[in-house]
Amino acid sequence: MLNFQFHNPVKIIFGKDAISKIGQEIPAGSRILITYGGGSIKHNGVLDQVLAALKEFEVHQFGGIEANPTFETLMQAVAQVKTQNIDFLLAVGGGSVIDGTKFIAAAALFDGDPWTIMEQWGAPIKQALPLGAVLTLAATGSEMNSGGVITRREWKVKRPFSHPLVFPKFAALDPATTLSLPPRQVSNGIVDSFVHITEQYLTYPVGGKVQDRLAEGLLLTLIEEGPKALTQPDDVDVRADLMWTSTLALNGLIGAGVPGDWSTHMIGHEITAAYGLDHAQTLAIVLPALLTVKKQDKREKLLQYAERVWGLREGSEEERIDRAIAATRSFFESLQVKTRLADYGIGAESVDHLVAQLIKNGMVKLGERRDVTPEVSRQVLQLCF
Amino acid sequence: MLNFQFHNPVKIIFGKDAISKIGQEIPAGSRILITYGGGSIKHNGVLDQVLAALKEFEVHQFGGIEANPTFETLMQAVAQVKTQNIDFLLAVGGGSVIDGTKFIAAAALFDGDPWTIMEQWGAPIKQALPLGAVLTLAATGSEMNSGGVITRREWKVKRPFSHPLVFPKFAALDPATTLSLPPRQVSNGIVDSFVHITEQYLTYPVGGKVQDRLAEGLLLTLIEEGPKALTQPDDVDVRADLMWTSTLALNGLIGAGVPGDWSTHMIGHEITAAYGLDHAQTLAIVLPALLTVKKQDKREKLLQYAERVWGLREGSEEERIDRAIAATRSFFESLQVKTRLADYGIGAESVDHLVAQLIKNGMVKLGERRDVTPEVSRQVLQLCF
Repeated sequence: MLNFQFHNPVKIIFGKDAISKIGQEIPAGSRILITYGGGSIKHNGVLDQVLAALKEFEVHQFGGIEANPTFETLMQAVAQVKTQNIDFLLAVGGGSVIDGTKFIAAAALFDGDPWTIMEQWGAPIKQALPLGAVLTLAATGSEMNSGGVITRREWKVKRPFSHPLVFPKFAALDPATTLSLPPRQVSNGIVDSFVHITEQYLTYPVGGKVQDRLAEGLLLTLIEEGPKALTQPDDVDVRADLMWTSTLALNGLIGAGVPGDWSTHMIGHEITAAYGLDHAQTLAIVLPALLTVKKQDKREKLLQYAERVWGLREGSEEERIDRAIAATRSFFESLQVKTRLADYGIGAESVDHLVAQLIKNGMVKLGERRDVTPEVSRQVLQLCF
Repeated sequence: MLNFQFHNPVKIIFGKDAISKIGQEIPAGSRILITYGGGSIKHNGVLDQVLAALKEFEVHQFGGIEANPTFETLMQAVAQVKTQNIDFLLAVGGGSVIDGTKFIAAAALFDGDPWTIMEQWGAPIKQALPLGAVLTLAATGSEMNSGGVITRREWKVKRPFSHPLVFPKFAALDPATTLSLPPRQVSNGIVDSFVHITEQYLTYPVGGKVQDRLAEGLLLTLIEEGPKALTQPDDVDVRADLMWTSTLALNGLIGAGVPGDWSTHMIGHEITAAYGLDHAQTLAIVLPALLTVKKQDKREKLLQYAERVWGLREGSEEERIDRAIAATRSFFESLQVKTRLADYGIGAESVDHLVAQLIKNGMVKLGERRDVTPEVSRQVLQLCF
């Protein structure tokens, strides 16, 4: 096992009526800005629950944070924070809203050009507004970590940042809030969580036996419960397991003490930036291709994955690996998430463009061994058709 | 899944040279009291590492905290804290030292008789000294939780307490510190962790699919890696997996959202208080008996345990359950931890005494259904021979 530090101070409030408890977690007298996305929280009752829980506070609102939140939109929120002297942010939504709110929290108190926050991993911030989260979509894990991904629209750049100061103080997770989601978002969330886990699991062995078991447990839960979210869309118990799994998939636990890959994410970010695909769609496209290209380097973990996650014990090692990759693709497809660029109307000419963008954005040494060069990314992208 | 709150702010510093980093975690100018047990840390180099890491601080020492730490001893430390104006406690040892130090932290600032802290679950404390931990024995999980178990020697009473104020600020986990432990303590630690997990797993199903998978993953790690700690006593990678597993077994994660049993612990505490057996020895004795007595109530989870943890898929349900319980006992015995009271020279007359002590200490409605009455505890104890 590798040396690690693990520190996750987020307080999770999970289950029915979790939202009603958030007022106790916010300092009395706070001036709160509720941040949200397209406005579904106004129609599904979530905003009403939030406002009821915050009736002792002065509350303002900022809506319109998009999927793949943009710097341009978030800077409007920063302006509002300053005008209204906001001192607590409450993100109500999924990963995009929470990611964006983390950026608002840091940018509102940043001295200088806030884009600087995005220009180095381990953002150069010294303070941030406190924030909380009310989760309405099980997917990104942002509710219990200190990272976010922000897009600069004018430059078509999508980039991650992270800093301990932007951990939410609390996250309210009521699985019932996810029952009204469209199936596409439910499926996307399952794929997103799945790939968060594989990024931390399908690398090379370092003797992290317990991390492997935890990662496998989360994958098995997604494989068993995920399809039920589509066939039994009213089953809140299924949503509860998916929600807690997606949170644990990226709260730092399963990645502590083991290598991380993340090349699927980085290549996927370029696809979203260039062609506007959903984040999870890009992951479903890139992961099977990446695993195929990196089959030899990931051999031991792929064999373990084949056996423990997919129950594949027959056939040669090569066959088991190929079948595990095929099973991964089939799982995504079974959730109605297409796994080839061509399925989204993107042609082979995209490869050159995407590779150029990876180079432009410095994504030239990806993967757990830093050996996913632009040439390797090109091989991966060529397999995405 | 049941509603839950989960909040664990302990910072974990894991791996080689973890101890060298603790100075950064303690406020500058702190007056530190290092607390420890029988003094093995003076001989195995751990105390030297700690002192080297704290050379910028004023450091005092309090040794002699016993296994099953006593109120009587801990109150001597409280007196020293007051005399020396200590403002930070650093527990260096295993669960007993850390548990005891949590009590010192609370008692030092307690207004009134400190035993009051032990008289209700959810200790009535309003403040506590900050504490950190340097772990030298993988077992109790105390390094990453807010609970402790304290014995009042004069009354032969052993009792748990818990409060968020006694979470360690940090815990340094260097698996190499456990290499010099005697085999008995290594085995005890494995058994202790194992039973921490079963207390949170072998109850009744509430649809906590992800918690079940995590618990099973931790159990499998103990079953696979535990015996290696005895046969490959110099293998630090094995110790790393055992250490992190024991921490995760009782940091609140696998118990969040599911019922807890804990009757094995409560009955075991009485055996330790009355006859001085090691904590883990009492768990190894009580668990197989308890599972046998509660076989029907725990039926669904026992069948799942049989299949997923022990790979038992053949035979009738009754047979699989019996074989899973037998496998549990065999696992403990394979670690050289005896599983019957008679193995420790304790006779059948102990049953009346132990049941009387359970009643005296209010342990009359134990278990996940609060139906382990003294009469049920008697049945369990009668099966412990």
